[in-house]
Amino acid sequence: MAEKYVYGFREGNKEMKSLLGGKGANLAEMTNLGLNVPPGFTISTEACTRFYEEGEELWDTLKAEMKEHVLETEEIIGKKFGDENNPLLFSVRSGSVFSMPGMMDTVLNLGLTDKAVAGLANSTGNERFAYDSYRRFIQMFSDVAMEVPKSFFDGVMDDVKEKVGAEKDTDLTAEDLKLICEHFKKVYEREIGTEFPQDPIEQLMLSTKAVFKSWNNPRARVYRVLNDIPHDLGTAVNIQAMVFGNMGDRSGTGVAFSRNPATGENELFGEFLVNAQGEDVVAGIRTPEEIHELKKIMPDVYQQFLDTAENLELHYKDMQDLEFTIENEVLFILQTRNGKRTTQAAINIAVDMVNEGLITKQEAILRVDPDSISQLLHPNFDEKELKNSKVISKGLAASPGAASGKIYFNSHDSVNAANRGEHAILVRQETSPEDIEGMVSAQGILTSRGGMTSHAAVVARGMGKCCVAGANEVFVDEVAKTMRVGDAVYGEGDVISLDGTTGIIYEGSIKKVDPELAGSFETFMEWVNEEKRMVVRTNADTPRDAIQAINFGAEGIGLCRTEHMFFHEDRIKAVREMIIAKNTDARKAALDKILPVQEQDFYDIFKVMEGRPVNVRLLDPPLHEFIPNTKEDMEALAMDLNIPVLEIENSVKALHEVNPMLGHRGCRLAVTYPEIYRMQARAIITAALKLKAEGVPVTPEIMIPLVGELKELAYVKGEVIDEINQVFQELGATIEYQVGTMIEVPRAALMADEIATEAAFFSYGTNDMTQMAFGFSRDDAGKFLSEYAEKGILEKSPFEVLDQKGVGQLLEMASVKGRAANPDIHLGICGEHGGEPSSIDFCDRIGLDYVSCSPFRVPIARLAAAQSAIKAKQ
Amino acid sequence: MAEKYVYGFREGNKEMKSLLGGKGANLAEMTNLGLNVPPGFTISTEACTRFYEEGEELWDTLKAEMKEHVLETEEIIGKKFGDENNPLLFSVRSGSVFSMPGMMDTVLNLGLTDKAVAGLANSTGNERFAYDSYRRFIQMFSDVAMEVPKSFFDGVMDDVKEKVGAEKDTDLTAEDLKLICEHFKKVYEREIGTEFPQDPIEQLMLSTKAVFKSWNNPRARVYRVLNDIPHDLGTAVNIQAMVFGNMGDRSGTGVAFSRNPATGENELFGEFLVNAQGEDVVAGIRTPEEIHELKKIMPDVYQQFLDTAENLELHYKDMQDLEFTIENEVLFILQTRNGKRTTQAAINIAVDMVNEGLITKQEAILRVDPDSISQLLHPNFDEKELKNSKVISKGLAASPGAASGKIYFNSHDSVNAANRGEHAILVRQETSPEDIEGMVSAQGILTSRGGMTSHAAVVARGMGKCCVAGANEVFVDEVAKTMRVGDAVYGEGDVISLDGTTGIIYEGSIKKVDPELAGSFETFMEWVNEEKRMVVRTNADTPRDAIQAINFGAEGIGLCRTEHMFFHEDRIKAVREMIIAKNTDARKAALDKILPVQEQDFYDIFKVMEGRPVNVRLLDPPLHEFIPNTKEDMEALAMDLNIPVLEIENSVKALHEVNPMLGHRGCRLAVTYPEIYRMQARAIITAALKLKAEGVPVTPEIMIPLVGELKELAYVKGEVIDEINQVFQELGATIEYQVGTMIEVPRAALMADEIATEAAFFSYGTNDMTQMAFGFSRDDAGKFLSEYAEKGILEKSPFEVLDQKGVGQLLEMASVKGRAANPDIHLGICGEHGGEPSSIDFCDRIGLDYVSCSPFRVPIARLAAAQSAIKAKQ
Repeated sequence: MAEKYVYGFREGNKEMKSLLGGKGANLAEMTNLGLNVPPGFTISTEACTRFYEEGEELWDTLKAEMKEHVLETEEIIGKKFGDENNPLLFSVRSGSVFSMPGMMDTVLNLGLTDKAVAGLANSTGNERFAYDSYRRFIQMFSDVAMEVPKSFFDGVMDDVKEKVGAEKDTDLTAEDLKLICEHFKKVYEREIGTEFPQDPIEQLMLSTKAVFKSWNNPRARVYRVLNDIPHDLGTAVNIQAMVFGNMGDRSGTGVAFSRNPATGENELFGEFLVNAQGEDVVAGIRTPEEIHELKKIMPDVYQQFLDTAENLELHYKDMQDLEFTIENEVLFILQTRNGKRTTQAAINIAVDMVNEGLITKQEAILRVDPDSISQLLHPNFDEKELKNSKVISKGLAASPGAASGKIYFNSHDSVNAANRGEHAILVRQETSPEDIEGMVSAQGILTSRGGMTSHAAVVARGMGKCCVAGANEVFVDEVAKTMRVGDAVYGEGDVISLDGTTGIIYEGSIKKVDPELAGSFETFMEWVNEEKRMVVRTNADTPRDAIQAINFGAEGIGLCRTEHMFFHEDRIKAVREMIIAKNTDARKAALDKILPVQEQDFYDIFKVMEGRPVNVRLLDPPLHEFIPNTKEDMEALAMDLNIPVLEIENSVKALHEVNPMLGHRGCRLAVTYPEIYRMQARAIITAALKLKAEGVPVTPEIMIPLVGELKELAYVKGEVIDEINQVFQELGATIEYQVGTMIEVPRAALMADEIATEAAFFSYGTNDMTQMAFGFSRDDAGKFLSEYAEKGILEKSPFEVLDQKGVGQLLEMASVKGRAANPDIHLGICGEHGGEPSSIDFCDRIGLDYVSCSPFRVPIARLAAAQSAIKAKQ
Repeated sequence: MAEKYVYGFREGNKEMKSLLGGKGANLAEMTNLGLNVPPGFTISTEACTRFYEEGEELWDTLKAEMKEHVLETEEIIGKKFGDENNPLLFSVRSGSVFSMPGMMDTVLNLGLTDKAVAGLANSTGNERFAYDSYRRFIQMFSDVAMEVPKSFFDGVMDDVKEKVGAEKDTDLTAEDLKLICEHFKKVYEREIGTEFPQDPIEQLMLSTKAVFKSWNNPRARVYRVLNDIPHDLGTAVNIQAMVFGNMGDRSGTGVAFSRNPATGENELFGEFLVNAQGEDVVAGIRTPEEIHELKKIMPDVYQQFLDTAENLELHYKDMQDLEFTIENEVLFILQTRNGKRTTQAAINIAVDMVNEGLITKQEAILRVDPDSISQLLHPNFDEKELKNSKVISKGLAASPGAASGKIYFNSHDSVNAANRGEHAILVRQETSPEDIEGMVSAQGILTSRGGMTSHAAVVARGMGKCCVAGANEVFVDEVAKTMRVGDAVYGEGDVISLDGTTGIIYEGSIKKVDPELAGSFETFMEWVNEEKRMVVRTNADTPRDAIQAINFGAEGIGLCRTEHMFFHEDRIKAVREMIIAKNTDARKAALDKILPVQEQDFYDIFKVMEGRPVNVRLLDPPLHEFIPNTKEDMEALAMDLNIPVLEIENSVKALHEVNPMLGHRGCRLAVTYPEIYRMQARAIITAALKLKAEGVPVTPEIMIPLVGELKELAYVKGEVIDEINQVFQELGATIEYQVGTMIEVPRAALMADEIATEAAFFSYGTNDMTQMAFGFSRDDAGKFLSEYAEKGILEKSPFEVLDQKGVGQLLEMASVKGRAANPDIHLGICGEHGGEPSSIDFCDRIGLDYVSCSPFRVPIARLAAAQSAIKAKQ
């Protein structure tokens, strides 16, 4: 046969998506697995294309094919289309290659006519149901196939309800509904000019045309542009027999999982309702029964279902979520898909299935969503207590975990409270680097402004500390020390709880449950390590973070930021002295005071890392971040440094920048004040040599940030190496070290071939690179990014998920150019994206050597890296 | 001969730069032109390479070659090396392929010994001169060849001077200098351990070694890294006979141009001194005579020089700048090069030479430096008055021209003064868009902060208005209305003058001279138009600017910024109302007030452009730029709009951005508030239709700024087109228009293939692209860019000269990708670089269709475009 546009479900399989659409291919696959799927057929996407070529008309041979398949379906199911006793009814659904939810149209109960509705009443023994279905069908068909607005019918419904004194639709009797059907048909006749079609085949043809036409409705076109779906794919149409679970006590409907989706236990889990339609289960009017009860009522059907579940697991090699309907003791499987499950269940099922010989370790690894692991690492609130707790408000789930404590409104108060042994919650409008100590001291952090990548969010995730950010209903008055939500006001010392996994803020304290990293988790993560290619490092600035990360499997530090060290109380004064310094000598004198504390910082971190590589980024932020900008703080600093306050004010003015993100920071500081990086290089190397003398191995890497040009790197590196050589000479000892650079400025990626000649490594700073490539300030983009997401322009914030199409080009370009110019170069990523699974997958694909992320994301990154490696092997 | 390392000047030519170095090749070229160049020879760069292979030693065959060439030189000049009567002396100079000024060493008067010094005294008849030369030689040789610090000798000089009571060096007699020579030789002996070499050949070998060694001194190595010169090129050594113009009345020295370098007149122009060395001319001790006087003294020599100058012009086809020495009536040409000249002269000479048949029109066009043309377009101060004027201070020459007037410290006062008929100079710390009216009203603008691309500089250049920016010695107190420089204080109404071409600020008023765009300028610019490929448009926001640009040859508007329009007094209130608006309806109501004035703006501009394309950029800056941020101004606005001041304050707070450059601006405004661009699109199209109805042709182009993603453009363009279709429908008329986008965000360049599918044109916004590609905030980078220039990291500010290596990659990528996806796409540049010659050349090479620049740079751009087109043809 030269032309074939219609395929019975037995003729297809899951590989035929582009011809049959996703839904059609899936129905075919299930049918061919031997499942008793309600029969039917699919009109192919090719037919859709031809439909448009034919001037939006169905052609004769297509109609003939369709009729043939109607007959075939009648045979299979043993009912007749439009029959007056037990009519075959169809659902008509669009189904394109890519899912376009809600964009195209569906018609249910097609085939209902004045005759057939009586048949349905008869076969179900439920007249009310039959006429309710009929009136729904008339409305749906008129809307979808004939473009009669739904509202025309709603008006009729309301009239009848008022007349008969029915409040709700469910108050209507079978008689009422019959009347409504009559009215509905009149509306149709009035609007269309012909009688409501009483020929089921005519209904089918009109509905099929409507589905094809819906492919090109404006909503669908816009949806496709925004979702990168080509316009010329076309949609398929799926025409499937409807089955009824409400045909009496030997009928029913239900949903079940092949294993327990909460715990992973290997036992059937689900529920069902006798004499009911699927809607009844969802509506919750009747309470469903436990699936095992089915065994008592219909033992054969139960056994059949059990076998089906088992076979489907064997076929799909995964836990299945099944929807079924029993029509007169005949079991129909309406849908089967891999079941959703908790992370704990996911891991248990994956490990069990490996042990059962059902799947390989690689398959097991691919089964678990990396992001979901974070649930397992943080404590959570006790579910029962949580239900009884009063919700105050909701913010962004910025950093997972659960925390209860007393509110404090600044770092100082929070630290003092912690010192008194209290549990503190730090509440701020937004945090800044000056709040670090307060954040460390608190159990959790709540901010009223800022997004998922605000300072509070980033730092809290780094610390593995619970944080709810950007709770914009919460009005924080830091001066008055109050937090207001609507009319409720909370003051210092009031107790609240934060759920960092949901973003919800609760009143009072709630019991916490510690996570159990059970045996199967350990087994699973061992398999992960066997598979991954990339090294996973961590971003850590303190020995405590470093230890945490090692416990989670980190293999080194990919980013040790030195600026956080600058804020500690024991050195901030010297740092400020350095910044206020009027000349190089004064600056050096202040730096001399910072040197020993920095050296101690590095000593402590190197020590806990026990020889694992530690990548130290030299000072990055603009200097003005370190000096106060309120009148009072400036006065205090002036007193402290014993200089006129005017001098401080002038410094603040001189350091002010219009766009600090693009200002005097990173290696630019070292070009103007080389002595700063020299001090840091000295501290790093002196600490490393001290440990070496003590027999502790150290692998220091020195990273120069914000480089955009070879000469910039060459100059700054020259200063650093010169200082290190001086240290070597002074101490009469040497140690291996590397000097490399962040690649974060777009120009650095463009010039990577030159820059690589002077760099031992590139570490991609994708946070800043995203800011500069898009021209989005991370601090400001919140104002419009939500609108961008809503309008489908950028679905995910590029600060959360790496923009592989755009920013990714820069990373790939830098990697290719860098390796060509310097084959030994070591490539890694230290931006926030280094802990995000899809971004990690991209890093693996472009061949990076490592990713680095905050400690609590290390297991996630390990899993994502393993998944990517497995996919690459496949 | 297998090995040849030494080349007599007769053996080379100007093509042999890589072997003989630049200087050596040039000496050879002059010699071969038949000029009487003092004879000599060049040791090749290959010898330098071998010198290092030999462990920094000269080898025997090289020495033999050198000696041979010494003999040859003796023969040519008729003197003997180290002779006791009339000694041959040599200069020894380094000369690499690329000029490395001051990086390597030179020795003069080599060959002077105790014997030869007497010979020099004898031949010159000037004993004092001979011993002065000798003592200089000893010091120079010791320093360069033997590394004896110069200071050791200076001490001796000072001792002798004190002893004989000489204040200056010139007070020393021949006897004193003899004594000094004796002392100098002792210093040498003390430091080196051997006698000062009395063998000229030994001196020659030691000096040659020293020059080779100087190639690798640390200064030279750093210089090469920073100037992209490979380390392995090596330097050549030029050894040339010295000639003496101080051998009596038949000797002399001078400098002359083959044409007048000030006016371009075709006559010999220069001066000379009898019985003198070149230094005497420079030192200005004696007043030189006019070159034509030479005819009377030495007619043959004069004629010979005249012929030489004429021949050299024929050879080099350009006006020559000659240095000559006459030694006993023998004319030696020491140097000839293309002479520097004023722009007026450059154009006159170029046009004359075409008329003389000496060069082609294309050659003429290549002769004139495009940047220099701006001198011709602006008025300048009268030279004589200028010399007598008191300099107050100096800033950056931000926008050329000359202006005198009374100081005013804000826009309002300046406008009022102008309305009173006064000439005003607007003095500000820095300007902002709110100062536009003041800038328009003033004769010139002076700012104490900001660089060459600060707001004041950019806007002033756009207006063709004189501006001195970033005069950082000037302390401007805008509140007190004073301007302080050191102790001098200037108040409102005091008169100053600004020279925008030099950046100098003068006290009082100075007479101005208008430029004369003489006949040859017009001829020249006609030729330019014949040659250029690219269209030259202008950046203009007002009809006045547009007319100015058309007069300068602009062929369209490449960038019409609409934000400047928003600041006019008659609409700023409505603009602010629009910004403060709490919802879409209020915003639309305010926009309705702006619509008619915007429409009028576009009407006026379209009208003067008479059908030339006009590219209108829709609103670009963040909204907070339009609302006041001082307490007083906010109060005034609150009164004005009749709303509580708190509401204004809240708006200001809500609009505040950490990095406004990367904030809520450009098309992002249109994603959140589509009604703004809709209003602008309506204004543009309504104005265009009105003119069309009047019979005036209009070619409107609508440009959407800051696009980084196809979907962003598609959404905003959809809104714009929808509004335009409404206008077409309402008015029952249509007009052709284009919608395109700025490419300024780096990601836009990366995604240009996608974006091009929705864009009729790309206009490269290289200002912002430079900011984002480098991560440099234009407003802040001044803090470190000077240090970057000083350290050789970035020699030119990338905001002034396009960074072809980095940012250029993005432009090229966008052009290639854009054209591939949309072959009809029109490509142009509207950043400041569109008026900078080297950047224009780049634009031509990557195939852009047009450049756009401020009106006063249009002729410069035309010339640069023509030069680039000619080079491409060649």
